[in-house]
Amino acid sequence: MKRKTTRVTSYDVAKLAGVSQPTVSRAFTPDASIAKDKRDRVLAAAKQLHYLPNSIAASLSRARSNIVAVIVGDMHNPFYSESLQAFINRLQATNRQVLAFTVEDGRDCDAVLMQALRYHVDGIVVTSANLSSDLISLSQEVGIPIALFNRSTSDPALTSVRCDSVQGGGLLAHAMFAAGAHSYLIVRGDPQGSTSRLRVKGFRDALAALGIGDGSITEIDGGSSYAGSYRAISNHFASLSPNFPDAVFAVNDIMAIGCADALRAKFNIDIPGDIMLAGFDGIREGRLGPYHLTTVRQPIEDMVTKTLELLGREDNGEKPAAQINCVLPGIFIPGRTVPGLEEIAPEKALEADIESISGKN
Amino acid sequence: MKRKTTRVTSYDVAKLAGVSQPTVSRAFTPDASIAKDKRDRVLAAAKQLHYLPNSIAASLSRARSNIVAVIVGDMHNPFYSESLQAFINRLQATNRQVLAFTVEDGRDCDAVLMQALRYHVDGIVVTSANLSSDLISLSQEVGIPIALFNRSTSDPALTSVRCDSVQGGGLLAHAMFAAGAHSYLIVRGDPQGSTSRLRVKGFRDALAALGIGDGSITEIDGGSSYAGSYRAISNHFASLSPNFPDAVFAVNDIMAIGCADALRAKFNIDIPGDIMLAGFDGIREGRLGPYHLTTVRQPIEDMVTKTLELLGREDNGEKPAAQINCVLPGIFIPGRTVPGLEEIAPEKALEADIESISGKN
Repeated sequence: MKRKTTRVTSYDVAKLAGVSQPTVSRAFTPDASIAKDKRDRVLAAAKQLHYLPNSIAASLSRARSNIVAVIVGDMHNPFYSESLQAFINRLQATNRQVLAFTVEDGRDCDAVLMQALRYHVDGIVVTSANLSSDLISLSQEVGIPIALFNRSTSDPALTSVRCDSVQGGGLLAHAMFAAGAHSYLIVRGDPQGSTSRLRVKGFRDALAALGIGDGSITEIDGGSSYAGSYRAISNHFASLSPNFPDAVFAVNDIMAIGCADALRAKFNIDIPGDIMLAGFDGIREGRLGPYHLTTVRQPIEDMVTKTLELLGREDNGEKPAAQINCVLPGIFIPGRTVPGLEEIAPEKALEADIESISGKN
Repeated sequence: MKRKTTRVTSYDVAKLAGVSQPTVSRAFTPDASIAKDKRDRVLAAAKQLHYLPNSIAASLSRARSNIVAVIVGDMHNPFYSESLQAFINRLQATNRQVLAFTVEDGRDCDAVLMQALRYHVDGIVVTSANLSSDLISLSQEVGIPIALFNRSTSDPALTSVRCDSVQGGGLLAHAMFAAGAHSYLIVRGDPQGSTSRLRVKGFRDALAALGIGDGSITEIDGGSSYAGSYRAISNHFASLSPNFPDAVFAVNDIMAIGCADALRAKFNIDIPGDIMLAGFDGIREGRLGPYHLTTVRQPIEDMVTKTLELLGREDNGEKPAAQINCVLPGIFIPGRTVPGLEEIAPEKALEADIESISGKN
């Protein structure tokens, strides 16, 4: 779809929507007070007229602003800051900029999405949070492509790029089973999120195929955070003691790190001697000396490349016939929290880990 | 200084500089091939005419673009991602955006600074990397304020906001001395960087005042990174064994974490039982169970508030008479890597730490 460069004004929209011009402005001003029905009428009129409020008018006369908006979740999860940095580095290399937004996971990101649209960005990357279909269609009417990063979607209008959660979960189940685990505890993430659900599905499907019955698998909620997992593990194990599971799978690394800290500090458990542990994402913290998590690394660099390629294609008018859901395989990282996986000498693995962490100041 | 909204074109600049118009464009295009003397002439002419190339012309006709450029260093150091998130959150709350750039520490950031200027941002925050005086003056000629974050400067044209490195280093020296340390090892960061130099100065000055002679203090280079410190500690301690110092001060937390991992993995040293350890910054990783670093936390939130306040003041034309160097005190975090400092029950401290880490996905 070609980018529309229209001369429609907010007054045309106001007329069609049957509201005042200031109401149109308010409809596009985040947090402005406006009745929902009025806002819906304005958005509908704006769609029909291909109107987009622009705080930077000249971008109308240019094909591109060379800005890509990247909406990331709470950067308390290092996965997001690593992803954001990958986007910044990649775009900077081609003299494009990142307009950075953060939205708490699961929160509605209409407000920030609208701010992004007002800058006529070349594209929008959404890593978390929910989009309203109104805004999705609006952005498409005006030819600003949106891509989901690290999220799956059933919305036929959206393209998405993510790591294969089901395959990754399966890899970890196989590793723990091969290491002799009979009973498993799964620490879930955001119940609304597809990522946690698919990782758990991949893990459970693989265990089922290996003959592990549901009776040997327990699931608890880890609140998607270090703190939540630390508490969930503490409470759950206190109730179990001393009949602990053989293996714990936390659906992301920051949660696995919370589990490791709680298991060691509160129950003096040796990992993997007493209990195996695995996470998912491959964040740098998981490589730190006390953890060396067995995990599945998301191929962030490749995911960023693919995301920008898809955005660029739409931006050039090559609207894909159908929605593109790009799913890249995760990379299994043996780590040391599941026994018998170290494929390279510990010292070499450590060196690799040290490099992977680095960090200058 | 009021923002100039001028009609000067690249042709006027070309004429004054005695070059062709395409040369002017190249002078403002990062990585474009152009002779240094030509570029210097173009920048000089642009300054004289208050010319600024603008990829988004309409921002000329508006007082503000509502965009603040934030140039951060390598986000491998979590301090930078925490700072970037603080800027994003703070600006988003007032419907302003962050145009995010990364530049490796110590690298020249003229290229990205020029990209930022082209968007007529309201202000520019530089956390690391070096600025050329040409670009500093250019940005001021066109009325786009620059503030240094977490850096000191002797450039009278620049305002800066940073944490008191000398005071912070002193706090840590006093804590280790009070805990009975007689011999000290300092793991330095970037030798060019003022931050490392001032933290070491504060640490050494305090020790001197406490009667610790230079003979009891050794300094090594930690390469400013986890990897560099891990290696530096490994090599240095191998040469010392078994005559280890009583205390190790790494000038930032990510380096202190590298020291902790090396001391434990390679020399089986108990912290703080055998050796005390302290860092600086107060990053989340330092709160993780295995570390609980004794450190000085930079008041990031207050530093961000102060930085935006100073930028805004200049942006409103209230150019301060003199350079403003705002220095905020660091916050001492007792942690557990220096004995006898725990002022609150370990369990309460842990809870606080757990909260401070959090992290959703």
